[in-house]
Amino acid sequence: MYYIGVDLGGTNISTGLVNEKGEIICKASAKTLGSREPSEIAKDMAQTVLEVIKNGGISEDEVHSVGIGVPGCVDNKQGKVIYTSNMNFSGFNLVPEMQKYINKPVFMANDANCAALGETVNGAAKGHSNVILITIGTGIGGGFVYDTKIYTGFNDAAMEVGHMTINAEGKKCNCGRLGCWERYASANGLIELTEEFMKENENTLMHELAEKTGHVSGRTSFDAARAGDEVAIKVVDKYAFYLGAGLANLINIFQPEMIIVGGGISHEGDFLLDRVREYIKTNTYGYGMIPNTVIEKAVLENDAGIIGAAFIGK
Amino acid sequence: MYYIGVDLGGTNISTGLVNEKGEIICKASAKTLGSREPSEIAKDMAQTVLEVIKNGGISEDEVHSVGIGVPGCVDNKQGKVIYTSNMNFSGFNLVPEMQKYINKPVFMANDANCAALGETVNGAAKGHSNVILITIGTGIGGGFVYDTKIYTGFNDAAMEVGHMTINAEGKKCNCGRLGCWERYASANGLIELTEEFMKENENTLMHELAEKTGHVSGRTSFDAARAGDEVAIKVVDKYAFYLGAGLANLINIFQPEMIIVGGGISHEGDFLLDRVREYIKTNTYGYGMIPNTVIEKAVLENDAGIIGAAFIGK
Repeated sequence: MYYIGVDLGGTNISTGLVNEKGEIICKASAKTLGSREPSEIAKDMAQTVLEVIKNGGISEDEVHSVGIGVPGCVDNKQGKVIYTSNMNFSGFNLVPEMQKYINKPVFMANDANCAALGETVNGAAKGHSNVILITIGTGIGGGFVYDTKIYTGFNDAAMEVGHMTINAEGKKCNCGRLGCWERYASANGLIELTEEFMKENENTLMHELAEKTGHVSGRTSFDAARAGDEVAIKVVDKYAFYLGAGLANLINIFQPEMIIVGGGISHEGDFLLDRVREYIKTNTYGYGMIPNTVIEKAVLENDAGIIGAAFIGK
Repeated sequence: MYYIGVDLGGTNISTGLVNEKGEIICKASAKTLGSREPSEIAKDMAQTVLEVIKNGGISEDEVHSVGIGVPGCVDNKQGKVIYTSNMNFSGFNLVPEMQKYINKPVFMANDANCAALGETVNGAAKGHSNVILITIGTGIGGGFVYDTKIYTGFNDAAMEVGHMTINAEGKKCNCGRLGCWERYASANGLIELTEEFMKENENTLMHELAEKTGHVSGRTSFDAARAGDEVAIKVVDKYAFYLGAGLANLINIFQPEMIIVGGGISHEGDFLLDRVREYIKTNTYGYGMIPNTVIEKAVLENDAGIIGAAFIGK
């Protein structure tokens, strides 16, 4: 059988035909144009589904199910999107709408959860059954795969790990809460941290790099630190501390076999992750006395969401 | 069939014969005298097991399995205790030792995890399948029951929620980490908070109560707050804030159907929990838009650990 995964993003709809091994056979995509009516977007999503069936050279009979990764919260029992932050899908009955075009079971899950499943099926955590993926972007998304299934909580809204406080009396998050992990350890958190250090230290390589690129980015401190800039190394160390604080919490809570770190900042690789691993050693329960969680970089990039979505209904 | 649960505590061994409904038919107990050789303690544990079989008027054939709640970390695959903090069981092969005396499958789990299962089987969370229990004592223990089974992590060491930081740059915990939840929200954390407020405010009802009882306890602030002492109300509010901070994290992560709060402080009931519920409203993701986690007091007291231990192998 084959499985179809649709990654519904704010910019693009990315759809893939996936085989039993979790390999993408072919892809199709469309612009989301997120301000449109959800029924129009759903029609385009269905179109990409039909396209991969055709381009994959298979019949509809060979398709087991279709899965959709939604940037928000879903209710699979009712086939309804509960809410999405940047589109108009809140309250929309997406499953029946999709089934107007394709006569297959359609499932939904949060997109970060799908990415976690994708990395477990055929990515950095292949072969493991108890895995957390965190995706570091403007916020921090998370997914927990347990017994090779997405853990959703009783209301399909679990793993909002970005809104775990690591500093209960700290900086205010967009969500209203104080000290959320993503307030410190997201790409935005890193940029803010970089700017704070740059303000206090007027002559650093970070200033040069930021001037060259026209802005401070998530790479500014890492590039300068790699070149030996001491203040930048402090920024990276502090960032690793904040990232580690949340990861150590997740280890003390879940003791997963693996934590996979994805998103743009994960490209910093072991320069970042070795610092995090060092923090984990002294900040997790029973470290060294029990088998320890392995922390690795994600490998599938955007394909993780497609593969994971495809396997929701498997 | 019947199930036998053994709660191995630092002071007492408490054992119960449990029926299919999760009701305790009869109990037996012995002193732990924790500094003894583990083989001697195991012998006494086995003795209590044989005692409940006899007193319950059943035959060994009617016993499905024996479960042991251990205050520490276990390895069920090897039947070995990994470590306990206040006894000498670390590295001890407890399962084969018990099987010298009783020819039944023997399972182990962390004691806080057992309590969570017990409350789910026949306590405050009866009928629910996705439940977190936290036990507030000198520290904070936790257990997660998913699909009516204890979630253990891949290494049997999960749910050390007391060592989730809620203040990554805060007070140092005994474990070495900064800002652990139990550093603020355990009974010890509450006592320290009470003393801090008493030091800054010299004439409060808390001073009178502490003088009467000879010491500041976890009840001092609550008793004074109930009598209208304004400083004590501030202590209770602040404590509810710290307790809520960790609970909101657990909700954002797990979205469980219920969180059950046990341990001495849970006896403060809704005077405490209503404050926590208020905090949860504005500090959890999607509150009001999705079905919400219910927070309730534990009801089984020490029986929770026995019933949960009994059902490990069910």
